[in-house]
Amino acid sequence: MHEFEKVFSAIFPFWPSLREEEKQNLLSATRAVDYAQGEVLHEGSSCAGLTIVCEGCIRVSILSEEGREITLYRLERGDFCLLSASCVLEAVTFDVQFVAEKASRALILNAGAFSALAQAHPEVEIFALNKTVERFSDVMWVMQQILFRSLDCRLATFLVDESVRTQSDVLTLTHEDIARNIASAREAVSRLLKYFEGEGLVALSRGKVTLLDKRALRALAQ
Amino acid sequence: MHEFEKVFSAIFPFWPSLREEEKQNLLSATRAVDYAQGEVLHEGSSCAGLTIVCEGCIRVSILSEEGREITLYRLERGDFCLLSASCVLEAVTFDVQFVAEKASRALILNAGAFSALAQAHPEVEIFALNKTVERFSDVMWVMQQILFRSLDCRLATFLVDESVRTQSDVLTLTHEDIARNIASAREAVSRLLKYFEGEGLVALSRGKVTLLDKRALRALAQ
Repeated sequence: MHEFEKVFSAIFPFWPSLREEEKQNLLSATRAVDYAQGEVLHEGSSCAGLTIVCEGCIRVSILSEEGREITLYRLERGDFCLLSASCVLEAVTFDVQFVAEKASRALILNAGAFSALAQAHPEVEIFALNKTVERFSDVMWVMQQILFRSLDCRLATFLVDESVRTQSDVLTLTHEDIARNIASAREAVSRLLKYFEGEGLVALSRGKVTLLDKRALRALAQ
Repeated sequence: MHEFEKVFSAIFPFWPSLREEEKQNLLSATRAVDYAQGEVLHEGSSCAGLTIVCEGCIRVSILSEEGREITLYRLERGDFCLLSASCVLEAVTFDVQFVAEKASRALILNAGAFSALAQAHPEVEIFALNKTVERFSDVMWVMQQILFRSLDCRLATFLVDESVRTQSDVLTLTHEDIARNIASAREAVSRLLKYFEGEGLVALSRGKVTLLDKRALRALAQ
Protein backbone atom coordinates (compact mmCIF):
# COMPACT_ATOMS: atom_id res chain seq x y z
CA MET A 1 0.00 0.00 0.00
CA HIS A 2 1.26 3.45 -0.91
CA GLU A 3 2.42 5.32 2.22
CA PHE A 4 -0.19 8.08 1.67
CA GLU A 5 -3.05 5.68 1.05
CA LYS A 6 -3.59 4.95 4.72
CA VAL A 7 -3.95 8.68 5.43
CA PHE A 8 -6.36 9.20 2.54
CA SER A 9 -8.54 6.25 3.41
CA ALA A 10 -8.83 7.59 6.96
CA ILE A 11 -9.90 11.12 6.05
CA PHE A 12 -11.74 10.73 2.74
CA PRO A 13 -15.04 8.84 3.21
CA PHE A 14 -15.31 8.50 -0.57
CA TRP A 15 -11.92 6.77 -0.91
CA PRO A 16 -13.19 3.15 -1.17
CA SER A 17 -15.57 4.08 -3.99
CA LEU A 18 -12.87 5.59 -6.22
CA ARG A 19 -11.54 3.66 -9.19
CA GLU A 20 -7.95 2.42 -8.93
CA GLU A 21 -6.84 4.92 -11.56
CA GLU A 22 -8.38 7.83 -9.64
CA LYS A 23 -6.66 6.71 -6.45
CA GLN A 24 -3.32 6.56 -8.24
CA ASN A 25 -3.89 10.03 -9.68
CA LEU A 26 -4.48 11.52 -6.25
CA LEU A 27 -1.56 9.68 -4.70
CA SER A 28 0.85 10.83 -7.38
CA ALA A 29 -0.44 14.41 -7.04
CA THR A 30 0.53 14.43 -3.36
CA ARG A 31 3.85 15.21 -1.72
CA ALA A 32 4.99 15.08 1.89
CA VAL A 33 6.63 18.26 3.12
CA ASP A 34 8.45 19.00 6.37
CA TYR A 35 8.09 22.46 7.85
CA ALA A 36 10.28 24.10 10.47
CA GLN A 37 8.63 25.85 13.39
CA GLY A 38 7.39 29.26 12.24
CA GLU A 39 7.54 28.40 8.55
CA VAL A 40 4.71 29.75 6.39
CA LEU A 41 3.02 26.97 4.38
CA HIS A 42 0.46 29.09 2.65
CA GLU A 43 -0.28 32.76 2.32
CA GLY A 44 -2.66 34.99 0.42
CA SER A 45 -4.50 33.60 -2.55
CA SER A 46 -1.91 31.06 -3.69
CA CYS A 47 -3.46 27.71 -4.36
CA ALA A 48 -0.88 25.09 -3.50
CA GLY A 49 -3.23 22.35 -2.52
CA LEU A 50 -5.11 20.68 0.30
CA THR A 51 -3.13 20.50 3.52
CA ILE A 52 -3.30 17.26 5.50
CA VAL A 53 -1.37 17.32 8.75
CA CYS A 54 0.60 14.16 9.60
CA GLU A 55 2.59 15.51 12.54
CA GLY A 56 2.91 18.77 14.42
CA CYS A 57 0.50 21.66 14.42
CA ILE A 58 -0.45 24.22 11.77
CA ARG A 59 -2.08 27.48 12.78
CA VAL A 60 -4.58 29.03 10.36
CA SER A 61 -5.06 32.78 10.74
CA ILE A 62 -6.11 35.95 9.00
CA LEU A 63 -3.69 38.81 8.63
CA SER A 64 -4.23 42.54 8.59
CA GLU A 65 -2.33 44.79 6.19
CA GLU A 66 -0.14 45.77 9.14
CA GLY A 67 0.63 42.14 9.93
CA ARG A 68 -1.65 41.74 12.96
CA GLU A 69 -3.08 38.28 13.03
CA ILE A 70 -6.01 36.43 14.51
CA THR A 71 -5.93 32.67 14.98
CA LEU A 72 -8.96 31.01 13.39
CA TYR A 73 -8.17 27.42 14.29
CA ARG A 74 -5.36 24.89 14.48
CA LEU A 75 -4.79 21.77 12.40
CA GLU A 76 -3.29 18.80 14.18
CA ARG A 77 -2.44 15.22 13.23
CA GLY A 78 -5.19 13.86 10.96
CA ASP A 79 -6.80 17.26 10.35
CA PHE A 80 -6.94 18.74 6.93
CA CYS A 81 -8.07 21.98 5.40
CA LEU A 82 -9.09 23.16 1.98
CA LEU A 83 -8.50 26.86 2.52
CA SER A 84 -4.92 26.42 1.28
CA ALA A 85 -6.54 25.26 -1.97
CA SER A 86 -9.21 27.93 -2.19
CA CYS A 87 -9.14 27.81 -6.00
CA VAL A 88 -10.95 24.47 -5.66
CA LEU A 89 -13.93 26.31 -4.17
CA GLU A 90 -15.08 29.25 -6.22
CA ALA A 91 -17.16 30.61 -3.37
CA VAL A 92 -14.10 31.14 -1.14
CA THR A 93 -12.93 34.69 -1.78
CA PHE A 94 -10.82 35.42 1.30
CA ASP A 95 -7.21 34.74 2.19
CA VAL A 96 -5.80 32.96 5.16
CA GLN A 97 -2.30 32.14 6.32
CA PHE A 98 -0.99 28.72 7.38
CA VAL A 99 2.03 28.70 9.71
CA ALA A 100 3.73 25.71 11.31
CA GLU A 101 3.35 26.30 15.04
CA LYS A 102 5.87 23.57 15.71
CA ALA A 103 8.01 21.42 13.41
CA SER A 104 5.38 19.73 11.28
CA ARG A 105 4.93 17.28 8.46
CA ALA A 106 2.03 17.63 6.06
CA LEU A 107 0.80 16.08 2.85
CA ILE A 108 0.02 18.62 0.14
CA LEU A 109 -2.54 17.34 -2.35
CA ASN A 110 -2.41 19.25 -5.62
CA ALA A 111 -5.46 21.50 -6.02
CA GLY A 112 -5.98 20.71 -9.70
CA ALA A 113 -6.04 16.97 -9.12
CA PHE A 114 -8.56 17.33 -6.31
CA SER A 115 -10.68 19.72 -8.40
CA ALA A 116 -10.82 17.26 -11.27
CA LEU A 117 -11.99 14.53 -8.90
CA ALA A 118 -14.62 16.83 -7.37
CA GLN A 119 -15.95 17.62 -10.82
CA ALA A 120 -16.29 13.95 -11.64
CA HIS A 121 -17.85 12.97 -8.29
CA PRO A 122 -20.52 15.13 -6.63
CA GLU A 123 -19.91 13.38 -3.30
CA VAL A 124 -16.30 14.60 -3.34
CA GLU A 125 -17.46 18.16 -3.92
CA ILE A 126 -20.10 17.83 -1.19
CA PHE A 127 -17.45 16.51 1.18
CA ALA A 128 -15.12 19.43 0.42
CA LEU A 129 -17.88 22.01 0.81
CA ASN A 130 -19.10 20.47 4.06
CA LYS A 131 -15.61 20.59 5.52
CA THR A 132 -15.37 24.25 4.58
CA VAL A 133 -18.74 25.04 6.17
CA GLU A 134 -17.47 23.34 9.35
CA ARG A 135 -14.57 25.80 9.28
CA PHE A 136 -17.14 28.57 8.87
CA SER A 137 -18.66 27.40 12.15
CA ASP A 138 -15.24 27.46 13.84
CA VAL A 139 -14.60 30.97 12.58
CA MET A 140 -17.98 32.23 13.76
CA TRP A 141 -17.14 30.98 17.22
CA VAL A 142 -13.79 32.80 17.23
CA MET A 143 -15.51 35.93 15.92
CA GLN A 144 -18.03 35.88 18.73
CA GLN A 145 -15.30 35.42 21.30
CA ILE A 146 -13.30 38.28 19.97
CA LEU A 147 -16.12 40.69 19.30
CA PHE A 148 -18.11 40.14 22.41
CA ARG A 149 -15.17 39.40 24.67
CA SER A 150 -17.48 38.99 27.59
CA LEU A 151 -17.12 35.25 28.10
CA ASP A 152 -13.33 35.05 27.77
CA CYS A 153 -13.01 38.04 30.05
CA ARG A 154 -15.34 36.46 32.61
CA LEU A 155 -13.58 33.11 32.40
CA ALA A 156 -10.11 34.64 32.77
CA THR A 157 -11.32 36.78 35.69
CA PHE A 158 -12.80 33.77 37.43
CA LEU A 159 -9.65 31.66 36.97
CA VAL A 160 -7.38 34.40 38.29
CA ASP A 161 -9.69 35.12 41.24
CA GLU A 162 -9.95 31.45 42.12
CA SER A 163 -6.19 31.10 42.01
CA VAL A 164 -5.82 34.01 44.45
CA ARG A 165 -8.61 32.66 46.67
CA THR A 166 -7.20 29.13 46.86
CA GLN A 167 -3.56 30.29 46.77
CA SER A 168 -2.86 27.72 44.09
CA ASP A 169 -2.32 27.61 40.34
CA VAL A 170 -4.05 24.26 40.18
CA LEU A 171 -7.82 24.68 40.42
CA THR A 172 -9.86 21.59 41.27
CA LEU A 173 -12.98 22.44 39.31
CA THR A 174 -15.05 20.77 36.64
CA HIS A 175 -16.13 22.70 33.55
CA GLU A 176 -19.64 22.46 34.97
CA ASP A 177 -18.52 24.18 38.20
CA ILE A 178 -16.89 26.97 36.25
CA ALA A 179 -19.88 27.43 33.95
CA ARG A 180 -22.16 27.77 36.97
CA ASN A 181 -19.84 30.33 38.52
CA ILE A 182 -19.69 32.59 35.49
CA ALA A 183 -23.31 32.07 34.44
CA SER A 184 -22.57 30.39 31.16
CA ALA A 185 -23.16 27.04 29.49
CA ARG A 186 -20.84 24.08 30.12
CA GLU A 187 -20.28 23.55 26.38
CA ALA A 188 -19.23 27.18 25.92
CA VAL A 189 -16.84 27.00 28.86
CA SER A 190 -15.30 23.71 27.68
CA ARG A 191 -14.73 25.10 24.23
CA LEU A 192 -13.18 28.29 25.55
CA LEU A 193 -10.96 26.41 28.02
CA LYS A 194 -9.72 24.33 25.10
CA TYR A 195 -8.97 27.52 23.21
CA PHE A 196 -7.11 28.89 26.26
CA GLU A 197 -5.15 25.63 26.38
CA GLY A 198 -4.22 26.02 22.70
CA GLU A 199 -2.98 29.53 23.48
CA GLY A 200 -0.81 28.20 26.31
CA LEU A 201 -2.77 29.94 29.07
CA VAL A 202 -3.90 26.85 30.95
CA ALA A 203 -3.40 23.09 31.02
CA LEU A 204 -6.46 20.87 31.37
CA SER A 205 -6.83 17.50 32.99
CA ARG A 206 -9.76 15.64 34.49
CA GLY A 207 -11.47 17.88 37.05
CA LYS A 208 -8.47 20.27 37.08
CA VAL A 209 -7.41 23.49 35.43
CA THR A 210 -3.77 24.54 35.83
CA LEU A 211 -2.93 28.19 35.22
CA LEU A 212 0.21 28.44 33.08
CA ASP A 213 0.30 32.09 32.07
CA LYS A 214 -1.30 34.23 34.78
CA ARG A 215 0.01 37.45 33.31
CA ALA A 216 -1.85 36.79 30.05
CA LEU A 217 -4.96 35.71 31.94
CA ARG A 218 -4.90 38.89 33.98
CA ALA A 219 -4.59 40.93 30.81
CA LEU A 220 -7.60 39.11 29.36
CA ALA A 221 -9.54 39.72 32.54
CA GLN A 222 -9.31 43.47 32.08
CA MET B 1 -47.66 29.54 -13.31
CA HIS B 2 -47.63 29.43 -9.52
CA GLU B 3 -46.77 32.85 -8.07
CA PHE B 4 -43.65 31.48 -6.35
CA GLU B 5 -42.42 29.62 -9.42
CA LYS B 6 -40.99 32.72 -11.06
CA VAL B 7 -38.95 33.44 -7.94
CA PHE B 8 -37.69 29.87 -7.67
CA SER B 9 -36.73 29.60 -11.33
CA ALA B 10 -34.72 32.83 -10.96
CA ILE B 11 -32.72 31.77 -7.92
CA PHE B 12 -32.43 27.98 -8.21
CA PRO B 13 -30.25 26.97 -11.17
CA PHE B 14 -31.46 23.38 -10.76
CA TRP B 15 -35.14 24.34 -11.09
CA PRO B 16 -35.61 23.37 -14.79
CA SER B 17 -34.19 19.90 -14.17
CA LEU B 18 -36.62 19.03 -11.36
CA ARG B 19 -39.56 16.74 -12.02
CA GLU B 20 -43.03 18.35 -11.97
CA GLU B 21 -43.87 16.54 -8.75
CA GLU B 22 -40.73 17.84 -7.03
CA LYS B 23 -41.53 21.38 -8.12
CA GLN B 24 -45.04 21.08 -6.72
CA ASN B 25 -43.64 19.74 -3.43
CA LEU B 26 -41.36 22.73 -3.01
CA LEU B 27 -44.05 25.22 -4.01
CA SER B 28 -46.55 23.80 -1.56
CA ALA B 29 -43.88 23.80 1.20
CA THR B 30 -43.44 27.55 0.78
CA ARG B 31 -45.36 30.43 2.30
CA ALA B 32 -45.15 34.18 1.79
CA VAL B 33 -44.82 36.17 5.02
CA ASP B 34 -44.97 39.91 5.65
CA TYR B 35 -42.75 41.34 8.38
CA ALA B 36 -43.03 44.69 10.08
CA GLN B 37 -39.93 46.82 10.48
CA GLY B 38 -37.88 45.49 13.40
CA GLU B 39 -39.62 42.13 13.45
CA VAL B 40 -37.42 39.09 14.15
CA LEU B 41 -37.81 36.41 11.46
CA HIS B 42 -35.36 33.95 12.86
CA GLU B 43 -33.37 33.56 16.01
CA GLY B 44 -31.09 31.01 17.63
CA SER B 45 -31.12 27.48 16.35
CA SER B 46 -34.73 27.31 15.19
CA CYS B 47 -35.00 25.85 11.71
CA ALA B 48 -37.97 27.52 10.06
CA GLY B 49 -36.74 27.29 6.51
CA LEU B 50 -34.87 29.03 3.74
CA THR B 51 -35.52 32.76 3.57
CA ILE B 52 -36.01 34.31 0.14
CA VAL B 53 -36.51 38.07 0.17
CA CYS B 54 -39.16 39.43 -2.20
CA GLU B 55 -39.31 43.00 -0.91
CA GLY B 56 -37.61 45.06 1.78
CA CYS B 57 -34.38 44.26 3.58
CA ILE B 58 -33.44 41.61 6.13
CA ARG B 59 -30.39 42.08 8.34
CA VAL B 60 -28.49 38.95 9.38
CA SER B 61 -26.43 39.32 12.55
CA ILE B 62 -24.83 37.50 15.43
CA LEU B 63 -25.82 38.28 18.99
CA SER B 64 -23.82 38.24 22.19
CA GLU B 65 -25.30 36.88 25.39
CA GLU B 66 -25.91 40.48 26.46
CA GLY B 67 -27.77 41.28 23.25
CA ARG B 68 -25.01 43.22 21.48
CA GLU B 69 -25.17 42.50 17.79
CA ILE B 70 -22.89 42.56 14.76
CA THR B 71 -24.31 42.82 11.28
CA LEU B 72 -22.95 40.09 9.01
CA TYR B 73 -24.78 41.00 5.79
CA ARG B 74 -28.11 42.15 4.43
CA LEU B 75 -30.56 40.29 2.25
CA GLU B 76 -32.43 42.34 -0.31
CA ARG B 77 -34.92 41.59 -3.09
CA GLY B 78 -33.92 38.35 -4.81
CA ASP B 79 -31.39 37.36 -2.13
CA PHE B 80 -31.83 34.25 -0.11
CA CYS B 81 -30.08 32.60 2.77
CA LEU B 82 -29.91 29.12 4.24
CA LEU B 83 -28.74 30.08 7.71
CA SER B 84 -32.38 30.35 8.83
CA ALA B 85 -32.59 26.66 7.90
CA SER B 86 -29.32 25.56 9.44
CA CYS B 87 -30.72 22.09 10.18
CA VAL B 88 -30.42 21.47 6.43
CA LEU B 89 -26.64 21.76 6.76
CA GLU B 90 -25.19 19.62 9.51
CA ALA B 91 -21.89 21.48 9.41
CA VAL B 92 -23.49 24.78 10.46
CA THR B 93 -23.27 24.91 14.25
CA PHE B 94 -23.68 28.60 14.98
CA ASP B 95 -26.73 30.79 15.43
CA VAL B 96 -27.65 33.97 13.65
CA GLN B 97 -30.54 36.36 13.89
CA PHE B 98 -32.68 37.64 11.00
CA VAL B 99 -34.42 40.99 11.55
CA ALA B 100 -36.54 42.96 9.07
CA GLU B 101 -34.71 46.25 8.68
CA LYS B 102 -37.72 47.71 6.93
CA ALA B 103 -41.19 46.33 6.21
CA SER B 104 -40.37 43.21 4.19
CA ARG B 105 -41.95 40.30 2.40
CA ALA B 106 -40.17 36.96 2.22
CA LEU B 107 -40.85 33.45 1.05
CA ILE B 108 -40.11 30.81 3.68
CA LEU B 109 -39.31 27.44 2.15
CA ASN B 110 -39.76 24.62 4.63
CA ALA B 111 -36.40 23.16 5.71
CA GLY B 112 -37.56 19.53 5.58
CA ALA B 113 -38.83 19.81 2.02
CA PHE B 114 -35.57 21.39 0.87
CA SER B 115 -33.53 18.80 2.77
CA ALA B 116 -35.38 15.95 1.07
CA LEU B 117 -34.68 17.48 -2.32
CA ALA B 118 -31.00 17.97 -1.47
CA GLN B 119 -30.75 14.32 -0.46
CA ALA B 120 -32.21 13.22 -3.78
CA HIS B 121 -30.14 15.58 -5.93
CA PRO B 122 -26.43 16.17 -5.24
CA GLU B 123 -26.52 19.34 -7.36
CA VAL B 124 -29.08 20.83 -4.96
CA GLU B 125 -26.87 20.06 -1.98
CA ILE B 126 -23.82 21.46 -3.79
CA PHE B 127 -25.78 24.62 -4.58
CA ALA B 128 -26.84 25.04 -0.94
CA LEU B 129 -23.32 24.45 0.37
CA ASN B 130 -21.80 26.82 -2.17
CA LYS B 131 -24.19 29.58 -1.15
CA THR B 132 -23.24 29.03 2.47
CA VAL B 133 -19.52 29.18 1.67
CA GLU B 134 -20.21 32.49 -0.13
CA ARG B 135 -21.68 33.75 3.15
CA PHE B 136 -18.51 32.53 4.87
CA SER B 137 -16.58 34.82 2.53
CA ASP B 138 -18.90 37.74 3.40
CA VAL B 139 -18.40 37.10 7.09
CA MET B 140 -14.61 36.93 6.76
CA TRP B 141 -14.71 40.33 5.14
CA VAL B 142 -16.77 41.76 8.00
CA MET B 143 -14.41 40.17 10.49
CA GLN B 144 -11.39 41.78 8.87
CA GLN B 145 -13.16 45.14 8.77
CA ILE B 146 -13.94 44.99 12.44
CA LEU B 147 -10.71 43.54 13.72
CA PHE B 148 -8.15 45.36 11.71
CA ARG B 149 -9.43 48.74 10.70
CA SER B 150 -9.45 51.76 12.90
CA LEU B 151 -12.79 53.19 13.93
CA ASP B 152 -12.58 56.28 11.72
CA CYS B 153 -11.94 54.11 8.72
CA ARG B 154 -14.86 51.82 9.63
CA LEU B 155 -17.19 54.72 10.19
CA ALA B 156 -16.25 56.43 6.91
CA THR B 157 -16.62 53.14 5.03
CA PHE B 158 -20.06 52.56 6.52
CA LEU B 159 -21.29 56.08 5.71
CA VAL B 160 -20.10 55.89 2.11
CA ASP B 161 -21.53 52.39 1.63
CA GLU B 162 -24.89 53.41 3.11
CA SER B 163 -25.02 56.44 0.86
CA VAL B 164 -24.45 54.21 -2.18
CA ARG B 165 -26.94 51.62 -0.97
CA THR B 166 -29.72 54.10 -0.25
CA GLN B 167 -28.77 56.40 -3.14
CA SER B 168 -28.91 59.38 -0.85
CA ASP B 169 -26.49 61.69 0.94
CA VAL B 170 -28.93 61.99 3.83
CA LEU B 171 -28.81 58.89 6.01
CA THR B 172 -31.69 58.33 8.39
CA LEU B 173 -29.78 56.60 11.16
CA THR B 174 -29.26 57.12 14.85
CA HIS B 175 -25.79 56.92 16.36
CA GLU B 176 -26.99 53.72 18.01
CA ASP B 177 -27.84 52.25 14.58
CA ILE B 178 -24.42 53.15 13.26
CA ALA B 179 -22.63 51.77 16.29
CA ARG B 180 -24.44 48.46 15.88
CA ASN B 181 -23.49 48.28 12.23
CA ILE B 182 -19.81 48.86 12.75
CA ALA B 183 -19.53 46.89 15.97
CA SER B 184 -18.61 49.80 18.16
CA ALA B 185 -20.02 51.62 21.16
CA ARG B 186 -22.55 54.44 20.73
CA GLU B 187 -20.40 56.89 22.70
CA ALA B 188 -17.37 56.25 20.50
CA VAL B 189 -19.44 56.70 17.34
CA SER B 190 -21.05 59.93 18.61
CA ARG B 191 -17.67 61.39 19.46
CA LEU B 192 -16.21 60.50 16.11
CA LEU B 193 -19.26 61.79 14.20
CA LYS B 194 -18.88 65.08 16.03
CA TYR B 195 -15.26 65.13 14.99
CA PHE B 196 -16.26 64.42 11.38
CA GLU B 197 -18.76 67.30 11.64
CA GLY B 198 -16.04 69.60 12.88
CA GLU B 199 -13.94 68.59 9.88
CA GLY B 200 -16.81 69.43 7.52
CA LEU B 201 -17.28 65.83 6.42
CA VAL B 202 -20.85 65.44 7.67
CA ALA B 203 -23.71 67.46 9.14
CA LEU B 204 -25.62 66.01 12.08
CA SER B 205 -29.22 66.45 13.07
CA ARG B 206 -31.64 64.35 15.11
CA GLY B 207 -31.70 60.82 13.63
CA LYS B 208 -29.91 61.97 10.47
CA VAL B 209 -26.37 62.12 9.11
CA THR B 210 -25.83 64.18 5.95
CA LEU B 211 -22.69 63.49 3.93
CA LEU B 212 -21.04 66.78 2.93
CA ASP B 213 -17.62 65.70 1.68
CA LYS B 214 -17.81 62.24 0.16
CA ARG B 215 -14.38 62.52 -1.46
CA ALA B 216 -12.74 62.98 1.94
CA LEU B 217 -14.85 60.20 3.46
CA ARG B 218 -13.85 57.86 0.66
CA ALA B 219 -10.19 58.70 1.25
CA LEU B 220 -10.61 57.90 4.95
CA ALA B 221 -12.33 54.66 4.05
CA GLN B 222 -9.27 53.40 2.23
